[in-house]
Amino acid sequence: MGTKVANCQVQAVFEQAERLAADFAKTAIERDRLGGTAKAERDQLRASGLLKLIIPGEFGGFGFNWHDTLRVVRIISRADSSLGHLFGFQHLLLATVRLFGDQWRHFYQETAEHNWFWGNTLNPLDTRAKLIADGADWLIDGHKSFCSGALDADYLIVSALREPDGKLFIAALPPNRPGITRFADWNNMGQRQTDSGSVAFDHVRVYDHEILRNPGPLGSVFATLRPLIAQLVLTNIYLGIAEGALAEARQYTRSQSRAWFLSGVESATQDPYTLKKYGEFWVDINAAALATDYAAQALDLAWSKEDALTVQERADTAIAAATAKVLATRSGLDVTQRLFEVTGARATTAQAGFDRFWRNLRTHSLHDPVDYKLADLGAWVLNGQAPKPSFYS
Amino acid sequence: MGTKVANCQVQAVFEQAERLAADFAKTAIERDRLGGTAKAERDQLRASGLLKLIIPGEFGGFGFNWHDTLRVVRIISRADSSLGHLFGFQHLLLATVRLFGDQWRHFYQETAEHNWFWGNTLNPLDTRAKLIADGADWLIDGHKSFCSGALDADYLIVSALREPDGKLFIAALPPNRPGITRFADWNNMGQRQTDSGSVAFDHVRVYDHEILRNPGPLGSVFATLRPLIAQLVLTNIYLGIAEGALAEARQYTRSQSRAWFLSGVESATQDPYTLKKYGEFWVDINAAALATDYAAQALDLAWSKEDALTVQERADTAIAAATAKVLATRSGLDVTQRLFEVTGARATTAQAGFDRFWRNLRTHSLHDPVDYKLADLGAWVLNGQAPKPSFYS
Amino acid sequence: MGTKVANCQVQAVFEQAERLAADFAKTAIERDRLGGTAKAERDQLRASGLLKLIIPGEFGGFGFNWHDTLRVVRIISRADSSLGHLFGFQHLLLATVRLFGDQWRHFYQETAEHNWFWGNTLNPLDTRAKLIADGADWLIDGHKSFCSGALDADYLIVSALREPDGKLFIAALPPNRPGITRFADWNNMGQRQTDSGSVAFDHVRVYDHEILRNPGPLGSVFATLRPLIAQLVLTNIYLGIAEGALAEARQYTRSQSRAWFLSGVESATQDPYTLKKYGEFWVDINAAALATDYAAQALDLAWSKEDALTVQERADTAIAAATAKVLATRSGLDVTQRLFEVTGARATTAQAGFDRFWRNLRTHSLHDPVDYKLADLGAWVLNGQAPKPSFYS
Amino acid sequence: MGTKVANCQVQAVFEQAERLAADFAKTAIERDRLGGTAKAERDQLRASGLLKLIIPGEFGGFGFNWHDTLRVVRIISRADSSLGHLFGFQHLLLATVRLFGDQWRHFYQETAEHNWFWGNTLNPLDTRAKLIADGADWLIDGHKSFCSGALDADYLIVSALREPDGKLFIAALPPNRPGITRFADWNNMGQRQTDSGSVAFDHVRVYDHEILRNPGPLGSVFATLRPLIAQLVLTNIYLGIAEGALAEARQYTRSQSRAWFLSGVESATQDPYTLKKYGEFWVDINAAALATDYAAQALDLAWSKEDALTVQERADTAIAAATAKVLATRSGLDVTQRLFEVTGARATTAQAGFDRFWRNLRTHSLHDPVDYKLADLGAWVLNGQAPKPSFYS
Repeated sequence: MGTKVANCQVQAVFEQAERLAADFAKTAIERDRLGGTAKAERDQLRASGLLKLIIPGEFGGFGFNWHDTLRVVRIISRADSSLGHLFGFQHLLLATVRLFGDQWRHFYQETAEHNWFWGNTLNPLDTRAKLIADGADWLIDGHKSFCSGALDADYLIVSALREPDGKLFIAALPPNRPGITRFADWNNMGQRQTDSGSVAFDHVRVYDHEILRNPGPLGSVFATLRPLIAQLVLTNIYLGIAEGALAEARQYTRSQSRAWFLSGVESATQDPYTLKKYGEFWVDINAAALATDYAAQALDLAWSKEDALTVQERADTAIAAATAKVLATRSGLDVTQRLFEVTGARATTAQAGFDRFWRNLRTHSLHDPVDYKLADLGAWVLNGQAPKPSFYS
Repeated sequence: MGTKVANCQVQAVFEQAERLAADFAKTAIERDRLGGTAKAERDQLRASGLLKLIIPGEFGGFGFNWHDTLRVVRIISRADSSLGHLFGFQHLLLATVRLFGDQWRHFYQETAEHNWFWGNTLNPLDTRAKLIADGADWLIDGHKSFCSGALDADYLIVSALREPDGKLFIAALPPNRPGITRFADWNNMGQRQTDSGSVAFDHVRVYDHEILRNPGPLGSVFATLRPLIAQLVLTNIYLGIAEGALAEARQYTRSQSRAWFLSGVESATQDPYTLKKYGEFWVDINAAALATDYAAQALDLAWSKEDALTVQERADTAIAAATAKVLATRSGLDVTQRLFEVTGARATTAQAGFDRFWRNLRTHSLHDPVDYKLADLGAWVLNGQAPKPSFYS
Repeated sequence: MGTKVANCQVQAVFEQAERLAADFAKTAIERDRLGGTAKAERDQLRASGLLKLIIPGEFGGFGFNWHDTLRVVRIISRADSSLGHLFGFQHLLLATVRLFGDQWRHFYQETAEHNWFWGNTLNPLDTRAKLIADGADWLIDGHKSFCSGALDADYLIVSALREPDGKLFIAALPPNRPGITRFADWNNMGQRQTDSGSVAFDHVRVYDHEILRNPGPLGSVFATLRPLIAQLVLTNIYLGIAEGALAEARQYTRSQSRAWFLSGVESATQDPYTLKKYGEFWVDINAAALATDYAAQALDLAWSKEDALTVQERADTAIAAATAKVLATRSGLDVTQRLFEVTGARATTAQAGFDRFWRNLRTHSLHDPVDYKLADLGAWVLNGQAPKPSFYS
Repeated sequence: MGTKVANCQVQAVFEQAERLAADFAKTAIERDRLGGTAKAERDQLRASGLLKLIIPGEFGGFGFNWHDTLRVVRIISRADSSLGHLFGFQHLLLATVRLFGDQWRHFYQETAEHNWFWGNTLNPLDTRAKLIADGADWLIDGHKSFCSGALDADYLIVSALREPDGKLFIAALPPNRPGITRFADWNNMGQRQTDSGSVAFDHVRVYDHEILRNPGPLGSVFATLRPLIAQLVLTNIYLGIAEGALAEARQYTRSQSRAWFLSGVESATQDPYTLKKYGEFWVDINAAALATDYAAQALDLAWSKEDALTVQERADTAIAAATAKVLATRSGLDVTQRLFEVTGARATTAQAGFDRFWRNLRTHSLHDPVDYKLADLGAWVLNGQAPKPSFYS
């Protein structure tokens, strides 16, 4: 898949991402409070050019691999996991086009040229939107929930079930297509600026060439990498949240926390229970990071195989991704819950905004149940049974 | 301490508390969002008469024991832990007067007669407020933080360190005493309607008879029950939060949650992982409740001993209270964190307000570190060393 | 069910049990190594008279309630959980006779008079033993595993499935009945002196009057208390193991353990992590003990109802027992695993025998899976569904 | 440090190690029961040539790096962690000679030529052995405990404190030097064939050239890699135990375990709780393995730097090693404790020997307290403070 990106360019992009993240961090607490669309920040991401990271150079992109692209998702999520989410979904939706349809070259080029920000209206568990044949074309009717980034999107990925056989179809549509209404109705306890609200489709025309066929949704072994990319985007968001929480907690403990009067130490930074907890945070986040990087490398290897990808290789990648997701979920929930125990009662001030880490992770970590991810892993370990490809594994 | 309250009267009060709680529940999510003073609800509590639960009948109160009084704290906290907090502190502050000063009869009578709501400006870890002799009287200068319920209070308990020897003094003051300024500056992530903000003292006169002497702060074995009452008020708030969270989660799972598509069951209520989690919630909350009731009974026994209370009996009560507090903290953090795993992604909607349980508990559970509570218990188990009485144990 | 036992008699029995336990403790490590039948100790139990604790005074027993009987199980299990197991099963098997058959008065009297030690060959999950009609009588053929205490038993409870309909029958048999062979083949990693090996039945005659009918196995609401007694016997064994482990660990830490060279404290008894762990042990064991005592009281209440016991009362008792069992299992596994972290590397010496606590509990705690106990509790909390009576719930 | 070992040679050694491990596995349960010296297996290790894995080719060894050498420790430990321990300590003691003394070339050559098995009598926390000047030479008097592999050793590493200044000296001695008595007194609950008993020194002569000087114990930054090698040897033993336990549990569940009668599934391999647990085992062991491999690579990099190794590089290696050790300890304790929950009650049979995994790990994991490892990590994360080199970090 083209030439390898030079190390120095990767480094430069990481640094650019760090600068963007530092900017986003300045307003993250206030924007979390407000919710709604992060219009200015979305435009900053457009202007940065980073929306085309995964697009190969020949189509006008950066040609990054997944490991490095996902690292940028993580860097942004440290500062603001809503923006990390939108940025990660951008690349997930590009991967969707690449893996499911043969029109991907066109969309890669257009995206690179116009810095398109893609939005999601694909939700396989929400079966309300229907696809009805209308001559050579199609019409979509119905609703979708959890449409992250659909508002302010330049292009949309949409899913619907064909009438009457219920087969899933996925298409790429411009958001101004008549009949599409995107609602600003996302008001949840976390990931508050992801615009993960609902979209209504009222007799929305879909031209046949807009449908992602060849191979279609999960239509080949290679195409079944899509859910693994989704899982790793989520994993990097969770890990970013954990790392951001740890960094801010550390800063607070060092500058604000007081030693407990019974601790016998001078400074909160010497408290034995606090030290042990920081050690635990480190160990768990570090383990999650190692597993996440390992999974990203496995994904890159699988991605490079294209249609030569075997079922076994796909299974190995799925196992690596599931392992990383479990570890990131678990370590993230732990650090976002317990950071207060190493910062103290005063760290609950709204000004510090520390609860947003937990709210963001808790919200997003429910995307698909970690128990079933573990059961999938167990079936593989115990019974040698590979995870059955679906939109969630 | 007077006659035993009839069972039917206790039951009637519990039912009255349930009705109040049901009322508070209707607006709890909205008031959590707003923060600020729960003026209407505070007045409902005043009107209910329940502010005098612990006051013996001979002084115009209900003559409840601690077990039943704390049960009411728990009932209210299930619906709204800010109000449970204020209600619990009312009784803690009455106990403070009772245990530390010989003027308690006067204050009991006045409270019962006027339905006074007491507010807190006692905070032993905040050493900024000083007490300076001024002839036969005293002046207080300085600030206090975490002054729960000081705003809208009818009477205040205040602490200050005497100059120059740093000895702690505690007094009961009317809030309109010149020089007292109560700030509406509590804006934290949880317990948002407790008005736990700051109070400034500017040359505030304290008459000598307002100082709680005889025996003074922690001035006798009996007086050292005060921190144990504080710990058990907190414990019942935490337990109320846990029970409220469990009840609302249960309602949601039964009415809204969907079975995961890989679960092989028809209904979310049959999911094996969900069932196990509800079992775990139950086991832990039940254990905390048994330990909390046990500690309350120990407290009632100790309370009834008055000045005959021995150091050993006090130690046993302290151990029971600490045990209950650890269990309530732990089970509460678990259920408020994991309730989302049994309700699902859609349960993160702001409309459900489920994150408030975690924010409230997480905030209040930092009052004093659970690690040191465990170390106290360990010192007792391992070394036979009783917890050293302080404002926190 | 007869007159209440005087407090002083209960106390005397507890003290007698403590003395027996102290005796058993002297050889517990060596007997754990040897395995096999604890003949001398079984005879000590016979001689003690305590085998008839639960038998009412009118039949020659002590007339103890379950709470106090189970407390004796716990006291013995602290020192030696194999003997606690055998002693607990004695009372479980007496309860089996009482609840399932109308011949119980006879067996109560005989047991009290001759200090019979009952042994178990009832195992509902082992379906190999069959009951075949032979005129007015019956024959049993087949094998049973996990027959705790069958060796050296004075009387046996046996279960078999009637041919051809597979209905479960339970009978009381003398062990010298021709065709019964009891094997000394129990060689497992824990509970090594429980003789929980196998028994073969070769054309063993069972007289019809030996079959426990009226109401028969689980044949009435009252009869379904049997599995709850089983669960509480186990719970008290587990709790005894946990308490014994804690006591021996404490003794070791105080007398043998050394402060870690990086700890900054003089003595292992002051190490902050050690103190916290002892606090955790205490909290969890204490919670389990409170729940276990609560369940025992619920059992006593249910037991006293006899045939007036309602399904709802039985359900409440079952929930209390299941809750206690989960807590005792969990706290026991924790303390037996982590006691080494508070005693140190040298405490692994075979001479201390500390691993036997874990081996005993780990072995016995697999009797029935705690996951399904939790799922039962979850079904009750979430769906209001009572545990379905079986030999395990 | 010489030429890189060809991949195929590494693979061949791994396969040889697998064959040895398979052999050791056949008798592991019986030898665990017996304890004592694994003479035959030690001789198999000698004959295998693998005792010189880490010795560079120029001195007659295999020239393996640490990553691959430690992998062999892990492979052997899966089957028998006592032998893995002895094999790992062989390389730790070779590293001790290499890092602390300038005579290492001599000892490397002799070891490679004669397949020497090194034994340990170095124990910095046991301060009883003293070094006394005797002319140009020295005498050692006193005792050492935890002398793993000293019995049947071909050469010994010994530590003693110089009189009167208490400075630690380390020397390499032949075990037949007069005055050395090695006791077969190791009888602990785990790692039973490591001969980790005591050694007595009675006026044992040490020639000055036998003392490891230049740079001496922890005498340079490079020399402080020694404790990190120790930590990683332990980590690989723990990980091997965990992997061995998982493999044997899996085999048992698949071939022997029965579905619980309430599970609603046909086979134990489909039980939802069992699947989830296998998933958890996998996730945790996998995380530990990734961290362990990462640390081994960090060690190889540091090792290759020799005297150019910086304090910062040493710190990074120490952090990686500590992280891995915590993860391996934790995942190992979990799988060895909970494997019984996925295999069932019958899996406690002495014939299966499953308790040995827990006993072995529990015993060895107490070598140094994991709490202080976490505190070390916490000090680094929170305060940027590198672990202070000692024999334990």
